[in-house]
Amino acid sequence: MNQQSLTYILTASCPGRSGTVDVVTRFLREFGCYITELNSFDDSLNHRFFIRAVFRVEDNDPLDQTAFCTDFAERAKAFDMEWELTASDYRPKVVIMVSKYDHCLNDLLYRYRTGNLPVDIRAIISNHPDLQSLAQWHEIPYYHFPITAATKPEQEAQVQAVLDETGCELLVLARYMQVLSHEMCVRWAGKAINIHHSLLPGFKGAKPYHQAYNKGVKLVGATAHYVSDDLDEGPIITQGMETVNHTYYPADLARKGMDVESLTLARAIQYHVEKRVFLFNDKTVVFERS
Amino acid sequence: MNQQSLTYILTASCPGRSGTVDVVTRFLREFGCYITELNSFDDSLNHRFFIRAVFRVEDNDPLDQTAFCTDFAERAKAFDMEWELTASDYRPKVVIMVSKYDHCLNDLLYRYRTGNLPVDIRAIISNHPDLQSLAQWHEIPYYHFPITAATKPEQEAQVQAVLDETGCELLVLARYMQVLSHEMCVRWAGKAINIHHSLLPGFKGAKPYHQAYNKGVKLVGATAHYVSDDLDEGPIITQGMETVNHTYYPADLARKGMDVESLTLARAIQYHVEKRVFLFNDKTVVFERS
Amino acid sequence: MNQQSLTYILTASCPGRSGTVDVVTRFLREFGCYITELNSFDDSLNHRFFIRAVFRVEDNDPLDQTAFCTDFAERAKAFDMEWELTASDYRPKVVIMVSKYDHCLNDLLYRYRTGNLPVDIRAIISNHPDLQSLAQWHEIPYYHFPITAATKPEQEAQVQAVLDETGCELLVLARYMQVLSHEMCVRWAGKAINIHHSLLPGFKGAKPYHQAYNKGVKLVGATAHYVSDDLDEGPIITQGMETVNHTYYPADLARKGMDVESLTLARAIQYHVEKRVFLFNDKTVVFERS
Amino acid sequence: MNQQSLTYILTASCPGRSGTVDVVTRFLREFGCYITELNSFDDSLNHRFFIRAVFRVEDNDPLDQTAFCTDFAERAKAFDMEWELTASDYRPKVVIMVSKYDHCLNDLLYRYRTGNLPVDIRAIISNHPDLQSLAQWHEIPYYHFPITAATKPEQEAQVQAVLDETGCELLVLARYMQVLSHEMCVRWAGKAINIHHSLLPGFKGAKPYHQAYNKGVKLVGATAHYVSDDLDEGPIITQGMETVNHTYYPADLARKGMDVESLTLARAIQYHVEKRVFLFNDKTVVFERS
Repeated sequence: MNQQSLTYILTASCPGRSGTVDVVTRFLREFGCYITELNSFDDSLNHRFFIRAVFRVEDNDPLDQTAFCTDFAERAKAFDMEWELTASDYRPKVVIMVSKYDHCLNDLLYRYRTGNLPVDIRAIISNHPDLQSLAQWHEIPYYHFPITAATKPEQEAQVQAVLDETGCELLVLARYMQVLSHEMCVRWAGKAINIHHSLLPGFKGAKPYHQAYNKGVKLVGATAHYVSDDLDEGPIITQGMETVNHTYYPADLARKGMDVESLTLARAIQYHVEKRVFLFNDKTVVFERS
Repeated sequence: MNQQSLTYILTASCPGRSGTVDVVTRFLREFGCYITELNSFDDSLNHRFFIRAVFRVEDNDPLDQTAFCTDFAERAKAFDMEWELTASDYRPKVVIMVSKYDHCLNDLLYRYRTGNLPVDIRAIISNHPDLQSLAQWHEIPYYHFPITAATKPEQEAQVQAVLDETGCELLVLARYMQVLSHEMCVRWAGKAINIHHSLLPGFKGAKPYHQAYNKGVKLVGATAHYVSDDLDEGPIITQGMETVNHTYYPADLARKGMDVESLTLARAIQYHVEKRVFLFNDKTVVFERS
Repeated sequence: MNQQSLTYILTASCPGRSGTVDVVTRFLREFGCYITELNSFDDSLNHRFFIRAVFRVEDNDPLDQTAFCTDFAERAKAFDMEWELTASDYRPKVVIMVSKYDHCLNDLLYRYRTGNLPVDIRAIISNHPDLQSLAQWHEIPYYHFPITAATKPEQEAQVQAVLDETGCELLVLARYMQVLSHEMCVRWAGKAINIHHSLLPGFKGAKPYHQAYNKGVKLVGATAHYVSDDLDEGPIITQGMETVNHTYYPADLARKGMDVESLTLARAIQYHVEKRVFLFNDKTVVFERS
Repeated sequence: MNQQSLTYILTASCPGRSGTVDVVTRFLREFGCYITELNSFDDSLNHRFFIRAVFRVEDNDPLDQTAFCTDFAERAKAFDMEWELTASDYRPKVVIMVSKYDHCLNDLLYRYRTGNLPVDIRAIISNHPDLQSLAQWHEIPYYHFPITAATKPEQEAQVQAVLDETGCELLVLARYMQVLSHEMCVRWAGKAINIHHSLLPGFKGAKPYHQAYNKGVKLVGATAHYVSDDLDEGPIITQGMETVNHTYYPADLARKGMDVESLTLARAIQYHVEKRVFLFNDKTVVFERS
């Protein structure tokens, strides 16, 4: 068993009150855990506490996760804590949804293939057939589920069936050009990441690069956010940016934006999987990494 | 006469058509001018041509500006050209308007005092008395014109009187927390620069840092733009940006934003004075400098 | 014939003297060319002039390139001008050299496949077999030429044979971990681009990320430069940068650096192909695009 | 007593071993402290542990610092911990050394005057008289101690006398163009911050902007570092960066660099005073703030 697999991440969040840090760190100490990285933040406006600890067992043995969870649950209950234990080599099952643009998909698949995206991609779903061969080369199942206004409920049922079968834990909308239904949004709240091609909340809605062109902005960017029912309004995870000037027509802005979209989406997934992101009240706390 | 004073900038703009570049460059050649930097752009969507040439007279003598203008005017007429000749050591007369925040003002005065802001600051006008001593140390006249909803027309008349007396050519709103009247906006169109503390068009209106905090954005910024009648919607000259995270409460965002506001406003003034900015149809073409 | 194919780029460089701009723009005018973008710079320290004009023929017909070149050559001679005419849809023949790292190659091939890298990739050469299948999927010939200190001359002869056969116009070293011989460097001066994984001239030589880690830098970056005989010292085309902190061990720095290496190399190739880069005295003038 | 004054920062560092986090957090809990922000890092290559906790007393009463220190010292001893307790409203006594350039000094004084630099500036020392009036306006004592190779020991004795009299805790070299003696470097190790106008370790030594110009770099920057005996080689605290191009002659680079120097130095001081910086083995760990 390699060393990497012996590292764990404990994340927790609860109302802010005395003893929140101590209940976590004391437990880790008593359970024989060696903390290598720790971050906590107590939001004094929202009265909410967030903590993330990276640790290994002191003798580098595997952790008895069941015992850990049973024991910690008891202590956490008194603080009304939401918490999670994750082995740092755990690869959550991911389904990616796309339409025709392939820059984000290609980027994610490259990182995945080279071991630089810590997920387990189980399926790619699209409302178009175009990206099937890319999926095939990477040997990932590709589902083509066309959609129209009339067939949306059926299509979403097809999608949900794949998500169920694959045991999907994280849904990634990598330039999927359809709006998810209210039901889907609720069901996947906090577990679905979208990439929007603007610095939200600027340029919500359709054709953000055309909007940006019309405004003559000198910076364009992208926003990775959790999907919410309020279109293009979900909690922001991370944002990226590029400078532009007058020589960029809308198509040029779109082309330039592709790189920042890909990077921003990949970074959001990385942060999510590394348990750096906490969601509370439509906003996030992200213990980002420089 | 030092060498610096012998450099000139010719800027011109007209409908896009054949011969626009040639009419400028051929004239400069025939007039004995040595071009050191040249930029032109023909906007194919808006059918508009823009050009900026930096030059000196070939023998390093001063330019006969009167003859230059008379002769060039004739050629420019055929192209329906708007154009301007500027000695690069010309310092336009500037009036700065402020309220209570002094970070932008302090930054501009520092650059001005050390010869790094190529303007001639003739007056500072404020609706508050707070920044008078700062103005005094820099030996710049300070006018305190209080304003209320009721006295706005009178106050603006006072302001305009100062602008007239000083021969103001560029009006800089350095965190002036009042909205200019329609009449002022029209009168100073293209000659008044404002700094807004957000990445417009995101977070228009009041308290942008509070808005940014509520949205949980991961980037904040500032936008320098020409004042227009449409509040916080004027043509964008340049924008700046900083990364932020969850540890920034609104007051922290405001504090962090001060640096980027100062830098962005100073850069916009620099670009304007160096004749790098062209205004057309509510947008700008800026031959920026990296 | 589509409109894109009807655009051309004229670049020229010569000793700085009177009339350099005019000889170019007047000729373009007389030849019936419509300039859409023009940049010139007269380097007053090095007494060198550089110009780049993007244009189309006025009636959108194709350009008579032969006549253009014959006629312009005459005028250019008087100025001792080095110049080049390029159709903007021209795709120079490119050979990419790699070793085992595939992030730059993968990025270039993605851009190439989606029409976002304006080149014609004719071959991939490597001293290792590892990246063959990636090349195959993109249907590009892959040559595996192993190299040792003893076989270097033979290997370079093999390489040069491929460059000759393919008519290679631009050689791209996409993390090729071998030093080219003096002869190769001379032969490909100004036509071979390398990506170095540091902000040159900082961290020259081997293992720059280890060097960066040891120094505890807070920024890491990459430099795309023309290959020169002086290892890691060639003329810089463009540089990219990322922030890092203490949590980045050398392997983390290397991983984080991959994205900036890929972006920086792709941008350098783009600039080179768009004729934005001029080489003079071991330095470049780059009419970059924001 | 305002709320701000009731916040404290505990920082500690020791060899990495089991229980390091717990010894700190458990003590804080037992002492009735409410942690609002916590960061720890265990450097597995250097086997060193670093922690920073921001806290207040639970009932918002002031902390009994003497008792705190006495009690914590006992626990820390077992871990061979170096530690420090700091009231977050504590303003360390600072002396600034300058020569003739005033951009960093002006920036620091502005932040100081407006309450945005959490220090207590007790004196400004210069080897030139030029910046006296700036100091005067800010009502800070200014010492003019000329220096020559021959008088260096005497001059440094004068400097040290001021540092002693003022009780200086942090020495800031804000573009002081002299090299400190070995004795001074040793004496002020970890307590003296310098700003170097390049992205160290690139362009060490004199005239870095001339060096950068000669290399044709496309990025320039500044490095704030602790002064060490090895000139321009001290541990890096933070770095800043700007893009440049061929139109920047050395004087232009220097001018452009001024802003990034000022910002980078101010940020380094802020980080130092907020106890975000740990020094170990010629490198720093900085719990930076996005």
